Amino acid sequence: MVTIEQWAFGEWTFEGPTSGNPYIDVSFSAVFRQANREMFVRGFYDGDGEYGLRFMPDTCGEWHFATTSNAPELDGQTGVLECIPAQPGNHGPVSVWGQTRFAYADGTPYFQIGTTCYAWAHQGVVLEQQTIRTLAESPFNKLRMCVFPKHYRFNHNEPPLYAYEKKADGSFDLERFNPAFFQHYEDLLAALRTLNIEADLILFHPYDRWGFADMEAEQDDLYLRYIIARFAAFRNVWWSLANEYDLMRAKTELDWDRFFRIVQAEDPYHHLRSIHNCRAFYDHSKPWVTHASIQHSDLARVGEWRMQYGKPVVDDECQYEGNIENQWGNITARELTHRFWEGTLRGGYVGHGETYRHPEDILWWSKGGVLRGESPARICFLRDVLADVVQQLVPMERAEVMLERQRYASARIGDEYFIIYFGNSQVGGVTLQLPPGNNYRLELIDTWEMTVTPLGDVREEQYIELPTKPNLALRFTAVG
Amino acid sequence: MVTIEQWAFGEWTFEGPTSGNPYIDVSFSAVFRQANREMFVRGFYDGDGEYGLRFMPDTCGEWHFATTSNAPELDGQTGVLECIPAQPGNHGPVSVWGQTRFAYADGTPYFQIGTTCYAWAHQGVVLEQQTIRTLAESPFNKLRMCVFPKHYRFNHNEPPLYAYEKKADGSFDLERFNPAFFQHYEDLLAALRTLNIEADLILFHPYDRWGFADMEAEQDDLYLRYIIARFAAFRNVWWSLANEYDLMRAKTELDWDRFFRIVQAEDPYHHLRSIHNCRAFYDHSKPWVTHASIQHSDLARVGEWRMQYGKPVVDDECQYEGNIENQWGNITARELTHRFWEGTLRGGYVGHGETYRHPEDILWWSKGGVLRGESPARICFLRDVLADVVQQLVPMERAEVMLERQRYASARIGDEYFIIYFGNSQVGGVTLQLPPGNNYRLELIDTWEMTVTPLGDVREEQYIELPTKPNLALRFTAVG
Repeated sequence: MVTIEQWAFGEWTFEGPTSGNPYIDVSFSAVFRQANREMFVRGFYDGDGEYGLRFMPDTCGEWHFATTSNAPELDGQTGVLECIPAQPGNHGPVSVWGQTRFAYADGTPYFQIGTTCYAWAHQGVVLEQQTIRTLAESPFNKLRMCVFPKHYRFNHNEPPLYAYEKKADGSFDLERFNPAFFQHYEDLLAALRTLNIEADLILFHPYDRWGFADMEAEQDDLYLRYIIARFAAFRNVWWSLANEYDLMRAKTELDWDRFFRIVQAEDPYHHLRSIHNCRAFYDHSKPWVTHASIQHSDLARVGEWRMQYGKPVVDDECQYEGNIENQWGNITARELTHRFWEGTLRGGYVGHGETYRHPEDILWWSKGGVLRGESPARICFLRDVLADVVQQLVPMERAEVMLERQRYASARIGDEYFIIYFGNSQVGGVTLQLPPGNNYRLELIDTWEMTVTPLGDVREEQYIELPTKPNLALRFTAVG
Repeated sequence: MVTIEQWAFGEWTFEGPTSGNPYIDVSFSAVFRQANREMFVRGFYDGDGEYGLRFMPDTCGEWHFATTSNAPELDGQTGVLECIPAQPGNHGPVSVWGQTRFAYADGTPYFQIGTTCYAWAHQGVVLEQQTIRTLAESPFNKLRMCVFPKHYRFNHNEPPLYAYEKKADGSFDLERFNPAFFQHYEDLLAALRTLNIEADLILFHPYDRWGFADMEAEQDDLYLRYIIARFAAFRNVWWSLANEYDLMRAKTELDWDRFFRIVQAEDPYHHLRSIHNCRAFYDHSKPWVTHASIQHSDLARVGEWRMQYGKPVVDDECQYEGNIENQWGNITARELTHRFWEGTLRGGYVGHGETYRHPEDILWWSKGGVLRGESPARICFLRDVLADVVQQLVPMERAEVMLERQRYASARIGDEYFIIYFGNSQVGGVTLQLPPGNNYRLELIDTWEMTVTPLGDVREEQYIELPTKPNLALRFTAVG
């Protein structure tokens, strides 16, 4: 019997029809059963007469399957597998936890620290391998990446592979996929999975010169079903319906709603679903949206969105550390670090990006490669400081342990723990007003210098002098 | 014959009634005539049976006056004066020039560089003299200052003098002014006039424990007429109806409109008139408002307000360099300097303020004293760089001499002069696209380091590498 690790996947291959257009003409699916539980899983045509079927078991024990197809040779196939416990480091897929937080399926908190390399999967193996090595050394546990190639400033190269076959006239046949493209893409998904990096797959985007941004509705839907049939078995996949959906002129709000419903219906594992804006937000309160994926430079608004949507808030694009001419791509490392602290303490999650000029136009934000900025080290520090508490942190609208309560990004865990981040303000001192009865160990965190300095124990109302410099935080831990 | 310098003022004193309440009971005014021109000027009771009359001539030559009063001894008094040309350094009052700019009456451009010391006139002579010495060494040519004392954090001391007499029960008689208060205040106005500093007089404000913020309507109006009768002859006076008018719960929009109409009608010299908000803006498009006086931290919006009101825009309060707990009072010197450049190149004017903690609560923003921050030197530098061009600068919505046109604060004078300020962005290089035919001398301005570095001559389309650091500007001057 086949043995499969929990949240890994098994794959079965069957021979089937090659005539006509197998992507359109052949239906092929399976139901996987464990005791009285059934999961419907769609198979996919992988070229050369081969039909694939993938299944990611989420519970241990024996699973049986039986296939259904309009092709006799694919119909009524059966099999069995034994799901064994996950290996250490495999925590399963990420989903929403406690309304505005994330956790892995095994309950381990997931502290989203994202970055973006839109077109890294279209750069050829040498650069792609370099990107993977860079990611392995980075703080990032999520990567935003497009399925389709990107046409934009600094992005004019053709990808080595396309998702579609070409017709005789050189145009793309948008009803015939190119399995080689997907097999390559899956290698990258698998590499990210090994690194415990979630792949936030951007299914559509506006930066296109090949026609993938304005396919017919039936072609869009065919593409979605095919993608899901192939990729959903990767536990580290998230579905991002679009990057800057509001710039895609060929699509309407109803199209996006339909795409969400297709993804929701087709994905047996219910991976996270979101959609990312340029200016106008999609209505993230719609039921098929699992979390708000936002482009916005003002992280002070995270608390508002968190209240508005009652879902996790990820500011996936708050501008990039870099030095290009475009204003979205030249904030300082200090400012990006600041936005991470601000958004995190307001109860959200933040995305990194980097756009330093490169003689060959290899900017991390799109092509990957190496990281050259100063923010990733600070983002590591942020993660280290907050990893143990982030799941429990409750943001405060005002800094409740200051006598002069101000709207600094701040959060608490009951009366046990408080943290106030002063942002770009330089606060020379604060009068504390702590819950009576407790002593607190007070520490000064310099988010830029990456230092934690003990300031002794404090209690109730007292004045504390601070260095007059920006990007400091105060951490209070009850010591009884 | 009395000789008076143009835009200085002459003063005449007359003996009159002391019985009853002269502030209410006695009407006293004069008409000043030059050829066929007449100006109506109100006199004022100055206590001890003395009635004052002040007149600031704005044209040279002979002027005659005759008084009118319901008190026989004040009625029908006449006089004559000879107005002689202004001395060097006396440019007359400031008014609006060319829709969105300011100029002195003699045509000299006025580049507003303001600061704020709300309650400095209520601190006693020692501190007041120190404030004047500090101002003399500063870049500032406008000072926001309250007539009434201030009650607020760091401001709990009683003023040495009040604008009103006290009644037997210790409460203020809001229909009897205290001339000693006004005489002292006028000494300060005169000292500022000597320094060529405009006094932006804040007539009302909400931070009050004495009852001056919620007087009866008749008392408000009496106060306005008295203030104008005394102060309007100072050429350096501006009328700011309120600081944070929207926080004054006892006043309605109709009250503010009425106050504006009174000031407009009573002031024979038509000094500048504005009103300052906390959150909600007054409608600065109303006809009696000469310029928008704004509290806002986002200077990128100056261009929008300039278009909206078609009047000069002064962001009088964009937060303060300092280190207090309140978020409005702890921005860095770098950030305040940044806001000056941003607002100025977007076609507006910006106000400085400083709130560094002080052991005796002497914060510049309210009490004056000395300046301890690092922004004033940078504001001097900004003034020096822009003084010769600011009157002609036309803000651009996008940086029109960059191939990648971005929304950096930038301005031009025809094709002769361009300036782009990159703000907090770090731009490693730009591709220039200059008007064809001209050569331009290019200079890099480091607004924080206060340096101007020649980058040689440039023309048409070419790429220029820049240091990857924030707060830089590029200046292009046509050299034929």
